Amino acid sequence: MPHAAPAGSDFFARHRALLERAVSATGSREHWTRYPESPSRTVYGEDAAKRGEAGFRAQLGQPFDLLGHPDEGRVAPEEHSPYGFPLGISYPRLSPRAAVAAAKDATVAWRTAGPDTRAGVAAEILARLNAASFEMAHAVQHTTGQAFVMAFQAGGPHAQDRGLEAVAYAWAEQKKHPAAARWSKPQRKGGALELDKKFHAVGRGVSLLVACNTFPTWNGYPGLFASLVTGNPVLVKPHPGAVLPLAITVRIARDVLSEAGFDPDLVLLVAEAPGGRAAAELAVHPDVRIVDFTGSTEFGDWLETHARQAAVYTEKAGLNTVVLDSTDDYRGLLGNLAFSLSLYSGQMCTTPQNLLIPREGITTDQGPRTADDFAADLAAALDRLHSDPARAAGTLGAIVNDGVRDRVKQAAEVGRTVRASAPVEHPEYPDAEVRTPLVARLEAETDHDVFTREWFGPVSFVIGTDSTRHSLELLRETVRAHGALTAAVHSTDEAVLAAAEEAALDAGVHLSENFTGQIFVNQSAAFSDFHGSAANPAASATLSDAAFVTGRFAVLQSRRPVAATREESA
Amino acid sequence: MPHAAPAGSDFFARHRALLERAVSATGSREHWTRYPESPSRTVYGEDAAKRGEAGFRAQLGQPFDLLGHPDEGRVAPEEHSPYGFPLGISYPRLSPRAAVAAAKDATVAWRTAGPDTRAGVAAEILARLNAASFEMAHAVQHTTGQAFVMAFQAGGPHAQDRGLEAVAYAWAEQKKHPAAARWSKPQRKGGALELDKKFHAVGRGVSLLVACNTFPTWNGYPGLFASLVTGNPVLVKPHPGAVLPLAITVRIARDVLSEAGFDPDLVLLVAEAPGGRAAAELAVHPDVRIVDFTGSTEFGDWLETHARQAAVYTEKAGLNTVVLDSTDDYRGLLGNLAFSLSLYSGQMCTTPQNLLIPREGITTDQGPRTADDFAADLAAALDRLHSDPARAAGTLGAIVNDGVRDRVKQAAEVGRTVRASAPVEHPEYPDAEVRTPLVARLEAETDHDVFTREWFGPVSFVIGTDSTRHSLELLRETVRAHGALTAAVHSTDEAVLAAAEEAALDAGVHLSENFTGQIFVNQSAAFSDFHGSAANPAASATLSDAAFVTGRFAVLQSRRPVAATREESA
Repeated sequence: MPHAAPAGSDFFARHRALLERAVSATGSREHWTRYPESPSRTVYGEDAAKRGEAGFRAQLGQPFDLLGHPDEGRVAPEEHSPYGFPLGISYPRLSPRAAVAAAKDATVAWRTAGPDTRAGVAAEILARLNAASFEMAHAVQHTTGQAFVMAFQAGGPHAQDRGLEAVAYAWAEQKKHPAAARWSKPQRKGGALELDKKFHAVGRGVSLLVACNTFPTWNGYPGLFASLVTGNPVLVKPHPGAVLPLAITVRIARDVLSEAGFDPDLVLLVAEAPGGRAAAELAVHPDVRIVDFTGSTEFGDWLETHARQAAVYTEKAGLNTVVLDSTDDYRGLLGNLAFSLSLYSGQMCTTPQNLLIPREGITTDQGPRTADDFAADLAAALDRLHSDPARAAGTLGAIVNDGVRDRVKQAAEVGRTVRASAPVEHPEYPDAEVRTPLVARLEAETDHDVFTREWFGPVSFVIGTDSTRHSLELLRETVRAHGALTAAVHSTDEAVLAAAEEAALDAGVHLSENFTGQIFVNQSAAFSDFHGSAANPAASATLSDAAFVTGRFAVLQSRRPVAATREESA
Repeated sequence: MPHAAPAGSDFFARHRALLERAVSATGSREHWTRYPESPSRTVYGEDAAKRGEAGFRAQLGQPFDLLGHPDEGRVAPEEHSPYGFPLGISYPRLSPRAAVAAAKDATVAWRTAGPDTRAGVAAEILARLNAASFEMAHAVQHTTGQAFVMAFQAGGPHAQDRGLEAVAYAWAEQKKHPAAARWSKPQRKGGALELDKKFHAVGRGVSLLVACNTFPTWNGYPGLFASLVTGNPVLVKPHPGAVLPLAITVRIARDVLSEAGFDPDLVLLVAEAPGGRAAAELAVHPDVRIVDFTGSTEFGDWLETHARQAAVYTEKAGLNTVVLDSTDDYRGLLGNLAFSLSLYSGQMCTTPQNLLIPREGITTDQGPRTADDFAADLAAALDRLHSDPARAAGTLGAIVNDGVRDRVKQAAEVGRTVRASAPVEHPEYPDAEVRTPLVARLEAETDHDVFTREWFGPVSFVIGTDSTRHSLELLRETVRAHGALTAAVHSTDEAVLAAAEEAALDAGVHLSENFTGQIFVNQSAAFSDFHGSAANPAASATLSDAAFVTGRFAVLQSRRPVAATREESA
C-alpha cells in the first residue's frame, strides 16, 4: 500500500493558514473568497486562457486519460455541446461492484491520516483545480450550455470556493474534539480515577456523488470535498451529459492523492451512457454510506426512500417565488428581475418562477401598476435586455437539453402568454439554441396546478393574487408543500417586509429583500450565503453548514486506565 | 399568547457562565460534571432525601397533576414497581392529533426567542430537575427496578449532565454563525456591493421522544433538550412502565416555560397504557419532524423505515463484546467484569454479553487459563460478589419486566450453563425479583446463532475462539452486522491492543482497554465519553455530539441591500 505521510503533511503545512482563514470566514459570514472570479490575465497569467482552451480542444474526440484508474473497458456517453458539436470523449468504464471494492481498499490509510492531512490534500486539489479554471470553463460551457464567463465563474472559482467552504466545515467539525484527553475524576477517598482517552474521526463509508447536468462542479464539490475530508472515498457519478468537468476534477484529485502517498482510488469516476443505472445501483449498495445528489425530485425522493443504509443529501426541484408589494425603484426592480429570469436561460435551481402580485396592483415610484401592467412592463424589460443578440447570448447561454426545450413548448399553452420565448442567433455558434424567457400570466385560484410544478428553464409566471397578504399565504403554502431554493420580496413597507420574513421562516426558505441593483436572487456566495435548506422539500441539506458534514463521520473513542504507578502515587 | 421575553432572558443571564463552561467541557473531554452524583445531605441539603421520598409516596395512587396540560380524560398505564407494588397513578390522556396541534401552536414565540433564551430556559429546567433528584430517584427506582443509589445517580445527576451536554452542543451549534453580518464585495469600478444579512436558527418541527423502560431520563434527556433548545416543541411519550420519571420532568419543564413567559405546551406528556399505538401514530405524523427513540431494534428499524418525514435518532440493541487476550491483573479483571455483568442485572444497553476468549486460553499473572478455566473463575467471582444478599440487591436491582424474565429462562437452555441465574432475597422488598447473572459457555463456530442476538438482561456468554486474531475478527464481523454500544479488550501486548483498536474502528464501536479497577465498561461519563455511535447498527446517533443536534434546526437567512445612501457615498 502506498503510504507517505510526509507528503500529505506537507500539503497541510502549505495550506494551514488558508484553512484557518476559511474556517473564520464561515463563522463571520462576511464577504470572503479564495479563488478570483475574474478570468483576467492579470490574475490567472498571460497564457492561462490560451492553454485552457488548447487543453479542452485537444481532448475533443479522444479517450480521457486517468492514470492508474481501474477500468473494464471504455464508455462513450456521447456528450454534445449545447453550442452545437459532439465532444466525442470516452472514459473508463467501471462497474458499481468494482468501484465500491476499489474505494474500500483505499480507505484505511486515509482514515489513519487524520483530519489535518486530509484537509491539506483537499486544499491542494482545490489549488490545482483553480489553476485549471480555464480548461474547466470550456468543459463546463460545452456540457451545460452556460455562457463562457458564467462557466468560468460558476464552474471554476465559485465552485472551488464552495468546495473550500465544505473543507473548512469538515475540518473544523473533526477538530472540535481533541485527539486525546486525560479524564481524572476525584474520589472521596484515595486518588482520582484516571483514564487516558483517544478520539478518532472515522468516515462513514463509501460516498457517492450523483451530479447534475447544469452545475456539475458547483453543486458537486461540496459533497465531494466534505466526504473526502471526513475520511470517505468518493465515487463520482456524473450526469451523462456533463462528464468532462468531473473527469478533470477526478484526474486532479487522483494526482494530488498519489503525490501525497495515498491510493488515488479514493476518488473514482463512474461514467456511463444515458439511460445507465449506476446511480441507482450504487445508491443501495450496502457499503455506500453517503449519497450526494442534485437533480430531479423524482430521483431524489427515490434515493431518500431506498438508500436507507446511507446518509442522503439531496437538492431537488422547487418553486422559487417573488412577492411583489411595492417599490420605490420600479425600473431597478424590473431590470433586476429581467436579468434574474434570463441568466443561463432560467436553468438555475435559484431562478424565480412564481411572481406573486396583487391583481389590483402595487404602488411604485412610477405610479400604480396592476398585475397586467407589471407583466407587460416585465416583458418590455426583457425585450430591452435582449435587444442586442451578442449581449443576449452572453447572458442566456444555450438550452442544455430536450427536457428544457419541451417545457418551453408546453409553457406556451398555459395561462396567457405575455411574452413568448424567442430564439436568439448566437454570433459565434450558429447551431446553439439560445432562447429568451417566456412569461405567462396566471391567476392564483384557477392556475394552481400549473404553478405548483417546477418549470425548470426560461419559464416564469406573473400570478395575480387578492392581496399581498394572500401572496404571503401562497408563498407559505406552496413552498412548504413543494419546496424552494429562493424567495424574494419587494416592499417599501417595513411591516410587509417583516411579515415576509415570518412567512419565509415558516416556509423554511431564504429570503432576498428589495433587490434592484447588481445583486440577484439567483446568486449565492460561498462563506456568506447559505444555499438551500433542509427546512423545505427542495433540499435535505444546506451548502454548507455543520449539518452538511457531521453525518459523514463518527467520533470513536478508546480509553485506558492511566498507568498504575500514577494511581499509587496519588 | 403569553409572552414575556424579560423572564426568559433572566434565565439566560443566570446560567450563561454555566453554559459557557459546559461548551468548553464538550471541547476538552476532560472530567467535568455539573450535578453532584452523591446523594448526600452535605450536597443536597438536610431534608432533601426525606422530602423527595415524601413527594414520591404522596403521588402513589393519585392522579398526576400537570397544571394547564391539555387532556381528553385520564389514562392509567398501570405502572408496577419491580420492587413489588402498584404505583396506581393516572396521567392526562392526549390524542396524537391534539398533542401535535397544541405543540405547533406553541412554536412561533419559541422560535423568535432565539438560542440564548432557549438555552437559559433549558438550564433552569435542569437546575430544578437537579433539586428534585431525590423524588426522581424514587420514581426511577420504582419504574425501572434500579437500586436506589443507581436510580439517584443515573436517573438524576448523570441524566441531568447528559441533558446539559445536549444543551451545550445545541446552543453552541446555533451560535456558530452570527445573527447578522454585513457582506461587502469590492467592485473593479465604483463602490462595493453591500448586503445586510440576518441569520435565524429555526427548529425543524414537532419533536417526539419515545423513551425506554430502563433509563427513561438518562436516555431521554439528550433528545428532549437538544430539540427544545434548537427551537422545537417536544412530545414526551414514555414507556408505559416508566411514565412517572418523565411526568415529573414534563411538570418541571412546563413550570419553567410558563415562568419565562412561554406557552408550557412546548413540552407535552403523551402517556398511554401498554399496547397503545401513540408512538407509531405520532412518528409518521407529517408535522412530527424529529424522533428520538431508545428501545428495541424492531421498533427502531420500523421508525427508520417509516418516519421518512423526520430526522430519526435511535438507540437499539447490540452485542457488547469483550476480547480476552492476556492480563497482568487477573483478579482485577474478574472482579471488574463480574461487577459489569451484575450492575442493574445486566439490564443496561452497555452490559457486556459476548466474552471472546481463545479456547486454549490466555496468559495471566495467575498462570495460564483456558476458556473453561476462565468461565469457572468468572462464575466464582460472581458468587463472591453476591455472597451478601443486601450488597447483592444494591448492585443488581430488580428485574424490570417479563421480557427480561423470559430471556433468563431461555438462556438456561443454550450452550452449557456455567453459572445459573439465582434468586436473591431483597432485605427491604421481599416481593422484588432480584437475580444474579447467568453465564453460559458457547463456541464461536457452533453457537453463532445464539450469540448474534441480543440477550438483554443478566445473561452473558463465554465464547471459545481459535485465537485472539479470531476473536478480533468476530468482534469486527458481529458488531458491523448487529451493532454494539461497548467493546472491551484485555491484553498486556501493545500490538494486540493496537489491533483491537483497529478492529473497533472498523466495527464502529467505542473501546475500553484493560479495565481492572473501579471504572467499568458500562459507564459513560457526560462531557467526556461518547455514548453510542452512528457507525454501527446499534445506534444512529451519539450522545451527544454535533451530529446529534445539527439536524434539529436549519439556519435561514434574509438579506437586503445596504441603504442607498451608502451606495451613493461609495
